[in-house]
Amino acid sequence: MTSSDTELTFEQKLQHYADLAVRVGLGLRAGQRVLVQAPVEAAPLARAVVRSAYEAGASFADVRWDDDDVQKARFELAPEGSFETISRWRVDAELEVANDAGAVIAIRATDPGLHAAADPQKLAQHQRALATYRKPYSLQVMTNQLNWNLITAPLPGSARLIFPDVPVEQAVKQYWEAIFKAARADQPDPIAAWQEHLDKLHARKKILTDKQYHALHFKGGGTDLTVGLAEDHIWGGGTSLTPSGIEFTANIPTEEVWTAPHRERVEGTVVSTKPLSYNGVLISGIRIRFEGGRVVEASAESGQDVLRELIATDEGSHRLGEVALVPHSSPISQSGLFFYNTLYDENAASHIAIGSAYRFNIEGGVESSETFAAKGGNDSLLHVDWMIGSAEMDVDGLTQDGQREAVMRAGEFVI
Amino acid sequence: MTSSDTELTFEQKLQHYADLAVRVGLGLRAGQRVLVQAPVEAAPLARAVVRSAYEAGASFADVRWDDDDVQKARFELAPEGSFETISRWRVDAELEVANDAGAVIAIRATDPGLHAAADPQKLAQHQRALATYRKPYSLQVMTNQLNWNLITAPLPGSARLIFPDVPVEQAVKQYWEAIFKAARADQPDPIAAWQEHLDKLHARKKILTDKQYHALHFKGGGTDLTVGLAEDHIWGGGTSLTPSGIEFTANIPTEEVWTAPHRERVEGTVVSTKPLSYNGVLISGIRIRFEGGRVVEASAESGQDVLRELIATDEGSHRLGEVALVPHSSPISQSGLFFYNTLYDENAASHIAIGSAYRFNIEGGVESSETFAAKGGNDSLLHVDWMIGSAEMDVDGLTQDGQREAVMRAGEFVI
Ligand SMILES: [Zn+2]
Ligand SMILES: [Zn+2]
Ligand SMILES: [Zn+2]
Ligand SMILES: [Zn+2]
Repeated sequence: MTSSDTELTFEQKLQHYADLAVRVGLGLRAGQRVLVQAPVEAAPLARAVVRSAYEAGASFADVRWDDDDVQKARFELAPEGSFETISRWRVDAELEVANDAGAVIAIRATDPGLHAAADPQKLAQHQRALATYRKPYSLQVMTNQLNWNLITAPLPGSARLIFPDVPVEQAVKQYWEAIFKAARADQPDPIAAWQEHLDKLHARKKILTDKQYHALHFKGGGTDLTVGLAEDHIWGGGTSLTPSGIEFTANIPTEEVWTAPHRERVEGTVVSTKPLSYNGVLISGIRIRFEGGRVVEASAESGQDVLRELIATDEGSHRLGEVALVPHSSPISQSGLFFYNTLYDENAASHIAIGSAYRFNIEGGVESSETFAAKGGNDSLLHVDWMIGSAEMDVDGLTQDGQREAVMRAGEFVI
Repeated sequence: MTSSDTELTFEQKLQHYADLAVRVGLGLRAGQRVLVQAPVEAAPLARAVVRSAYEAGASFADVRWDDDDVQKARFELAPEGSFETISRWRVDAELEVANDAGAVIAIRATDPGLHAAADPQKLAQHQRALATYRKPYSLQVMTNQLNWNLITAPLPGSARLIFPDVPVEQAVKQYWEAIFKAARADQPDPIAAWQEHLDKLHARKKILTDKQYHALHFKGGGTDLTVGLAEDHIWGGGTSLTPSGIEFTANIPTEEVWTAPHRERVEGTVVSTKPLSYNGVLISGIRIRFEGGRVVEASAESGQDVLRELIATDEGSHRLGEVALVPHSSPISQSGLFFYNTLYDENAASHIAIGSAYRFNIEGGVESSETFAAKGGNDSLLHVDWMIGSAEMDVDGLTQDGQREAVMRAGEFVI
């Protein structure tokens, strides 16, 4: 038997990927309603997810489609003063399904250069209006009230950037293969492969939660940053649990363990190690200095205006809502590819997020906003991850009694 | 100069078509918000409409996409008892834009064989639940509260049926050309061509409204049907007017003039002259007998179950809500093509509709439901047009004082 006998076809891998999103990603419970969010250009994957959902027992699956070009036309052509209008029905779709005990899968893919020429202020106005209207749904996500999952699909725009040396059809194919590999959809029994992987993440989050470090100290490649951790913080990683007991994996792939920083105890300077692809604008060479948990200086080599508008959104967008550890040896990092897609790139490197913390990362935070805030949890309209890890990064854990322990060395876990 | 020098490119014709939908179809007023409804497979047209809307002054344009395959998967795979669940957000999108003084363009296209294998009862359950939730929006449409427009785009499934003898890519191209021709998008100045056409329809609807016939009598090719007309009925045709004075053309193309039958005064037998493509099922060879305005016998050579479920929807779906006159010499009829798409096929032949009448077809009907009903207007969750005209059809107008006047002979207007 030659190796090609055992290789899966594209259709088989697509099917695996859709099944993973539904079964591992959502942990779909029979009878649940499903909302798929998908770019029009990802129609074949969206349709496969819908069919896979029905096969896993969904009562009803519908797709809320979106389209880059329609978005682009708006920021090119719409009149001044119109950017705070949003399609409320798009958000209502999420709320309707969440309130109906349903599940939401998003195929997240945007052309990284989509809004390169757009006015950063218009983008920020729109983003703020959208996030404000979306707050009740975001809160459900932040408190694990529903099972949800993010996957991706290649768009020609990103494929061209990731694989610049081949024709675009070939680039899309290679992007698909990278996705299948990172998602373990290329394996004969992907669900078993995921079980093994999730077990490792679960062990790691338990160790870190038990440690209850007072802070983490990141040092390397221009970064010297101390991130205080919230009181009674809980590390997330692998699967999460809804109130009704559904175990789901919010991101496919996922390589991170993460928790909630203390919003008032972040000090020092941090530099990004990979660009951030944010809503169709590429922000690279980010350098931010924190004092008392708050951004006091922020610059970027490109996309600086967009970065500053982002930070200016509200008080919470001046502070951190997530700190995440990812080994440099993670498969996505080892692929050597930059995906221009946070879902992938945040799983290639340790990262932090500006904006809201997940409520479930603090004990009692889901039950009470007051407890969440009192223990140092941050609240904002935004949650934007960006990458700070590299092969040069050392991370120390500072214990409650002032000791210093090695957590990562040269980008790898040592605990 | 050869003829090919003056022929428009595909992109130019697509642009004309999009502009027609926005400027003639919606009569878009600057500052209006626009909702486009489009199948994923019609993305190039939907994007052109969005850009055209901004160029005509839209404040914001978004697309509510849908997809045949997602619909098909549901009726193949979803469990029993789940078909009354609808995506309320899809209807809310229409209401949101209508309530915001916006305009709605729908690209109507469904594979005619989509639900050929589906259970008619499940389809009917779903249709009823959807129409019930959609009633407040339908009422806005039926009373001209907003400017709206229907256009179409080829889907491979329909193209294959219309042009069975050529490869599907070629069939899609030929379908596009037929659309451009019927919509006058192939003309150098399509808006001027529309103005001329609309003037003719306006003259015709005025003549018929002034006549105030008590009834129309259709005879020919198996049909012998008397359709009483509502008291103080108004003939529609060409453009309509919203309360804020926007003049719009609800269908592109449009060749009909139509009015409201009296729901209790329809007598005799009518047979369809073309199949009806209804929600992905083809119903052909329809034969219906009316007594006192109500269906008393209904059969079809194919799709009979779906027809009967449709008629059983409510009391109003046993009665007529529209009678429309279209000359057999209409361009769509002369193309010799059957489009499997009511928007086109109803403009190739005189037709009637089962279900609701348009409120504006009866004087006082927009202002008062009571007046509308008292004058003979019909109300239902549905409004389904089907074709009864042909080159053999004679139509007489029966005057209030019992005279008989020739309105059409052998399918052509004689008044
Ligand atoms: Zn993260
Ligand atoms: Zn994050
Ligand atoms: Zn009609
Ligand atoms: Zn009609």
